[in-house]
Amino acid sequence: MDALGYYNGNWGPLDEMTVPMNDRGNYFGDGVYDAAICANRVIFTLDEHVGRFYASARLLEIQPSCSQEELKGILNSLVQKMDNVPLLVYWQWTRGTSRRNHVFPEGPSNLMIMLKSTKIPDLSKKIKLITWEDTRFLHCNIKTLNLIPSVIAAQRAREADAHEAVLHRGDIVTECAHSNVHIIKDGVFITHPADNLILRGIARTHLLSACNRLGIPVMERAFTVAELFDADEILTSSTSTIALSADFIDNRYVGGEAPELLKAIQDEVFGEFAAATRWGQ
Amino acid sequence: MDALGYYNGNWGPLDEMTVPMNDRGNYFGDGVYDAAICANRVIFTLDEHVGRFYASARLLEIQPSCSQEELKGILNSLVQKMDNVPLLVYWQWTRGTSRRNHVFPEGPSNLMIMLKSTKIPDLSKKIKLITWEDTRFLHCNIKTLNLIPSVIAAQRAREADAHEAVLHRGDIVTECAHSNVHIIKDGVFITHPADNLILRGIARTHLLSACNRLGIPVMERAFTVAELFDADEILTSSTSTIALSADFIDNRYVGGEAPELLKAIQDEVFGEFAAATRWGQ
Repeated sequence: MDALGYYNGNWGPLDEMTVPMNDRGNYFGDGVYDAAICANRVIFTLDEHVGRFYASARLLEIQPSCSQEELKGILNSLVQKMDNVPLLVYWQWTRGTSRRNHVFPEGPSNLMIMLKSTKIPDLSKKIKLITWEDTRFLHCNIKTLNLIPSVIAAQRAREADAHEAVLHRGDIVTECAHSNVHIIKDGVFITHPADNLILRGIARTHLLSACNRLGIPVMERAFTVAELFDADEILTSSTSTIALSADFIDNRYVGGEAPELLKAIQDEVFGEFAAATRWGQ
Repeated sequence: MDALGYYNGNWGPLDEMTVPMNDRGNYFGDGVYDAAICANRVIFTLDEHVGRFYASARLLEIQPSCSQEELKGILNSLVQKMDNVPLLVYWQWTRGTSRRNHVFPEGPSNLMIMLKSTKIPDLSKKIKLITWEDTRFLHCNIKTLNLIPSVIAAQRAREADAHEAVLHRGDIVTECAHSNVHIIKDGVFITHPADNLILRGIARTHLLSACNRLGIPVMERAFTVAELFDADEILTSSTSTIALSADFIDNRYVGGEAPELLKAIQDEVFGEFAAATRWGQ
């Protein structure tokens, strides 16, 4: 199957699947999600993604419709229905089905899953970025379906022929439209703290662990747009891109000053993915 | 029919209607909406609601799938399929149907409509309010489907046995979870300016016009939480509630100091609704 959709126990070709008009995701964006990449039928860091999904649900008081083990079982069983190609595995819970009313409804959450093919990224390839004002709400630590500002920022990046948009609240860089962003300066790996202004990326967590193992100092602190442009290297990280580095921001050449350190970090995190999924073997 | 759903030309009982899993409303909340009340088969201030809907769509670069006149025609034709009871008429556009990808898809927007019965409010009845920190994004002037903070605030109000939550960014009152909020102090009607921190309510616009006709000075300026508690009268306004006044906020007695002025304003805006819809005749 090219792409698969699942909804509360039913599944089929993604493009043919439907959900109730009264699903609260459909008119309130009232839900949370997570996503992971899968290669050789291994969903990479699944435990961590499912853990974060439950944390997002807890923060929004969305009641899990199944246990973490049951969810992992469903996801793994759906992967078996797909061809053995790299996949993006996406899942969400919405706060149930009810006629539109802001207050929480009775009844269970809705579990929706979407699987489609993806490409394993080439980490040696440099990307272009743009900067964009971060106008999002103050719950960016929760992986919610309220994604309009990220949609707009990603579209602006696409129109500039760039890969991602680096968001900043005034002078302070937070993250990208659908990635985290980090800088290396004078041998130190610097990234915005995992507070309510960014999503704690699983790939980000693995980048920090990789730095720790490699003896690279990590500093979790806010950094400015000026520091971004002045960095020795700029990295983005996300589930689907793992860790890409940038050579242009707003059409200005950036980074390229610490290529060996950059490569060591990228090799470490990609090696983890390759080992877990037997990728390239 | 008790409640009706419509999607891109198809319609039926609301609770049986479905939308594609790939509708961008379903996983990004990537859409805009509007809603109006209907009595005696007259959709009140329909032109104004449709105009605002188009403005919301323009601000999010969502392409209209039909003209304003066509949309009004569809809405009016669906009203004819319902029993002649007061209705809430809700409609939304999402940015089309596509497999999940942040950047804008090709193809038309999706028009969804929901009709259900409602009650015409009794403006003489006082309501209770709570206060709640406004953590929303900086696009509150656009009537989007990214409504999680409003959902949470409305739920907190319900749990406190209150009608609405008054949102404030620090000391500054903005609006409510699904209403605007206004105060009367020393004979002046004070309301937050219609900038990007509030939705310009159609009911709010009619309240201001009513004040103008009645010779009541209007001041569009930010006011504080302290001013809210110290006000002579506190009003909320929305499409479905028109203009209700509060007697308790966070369980503290408030307002009640300018009952004649309050009643004059409420009579004026309710009179407009009653005249347009022949309500009570």
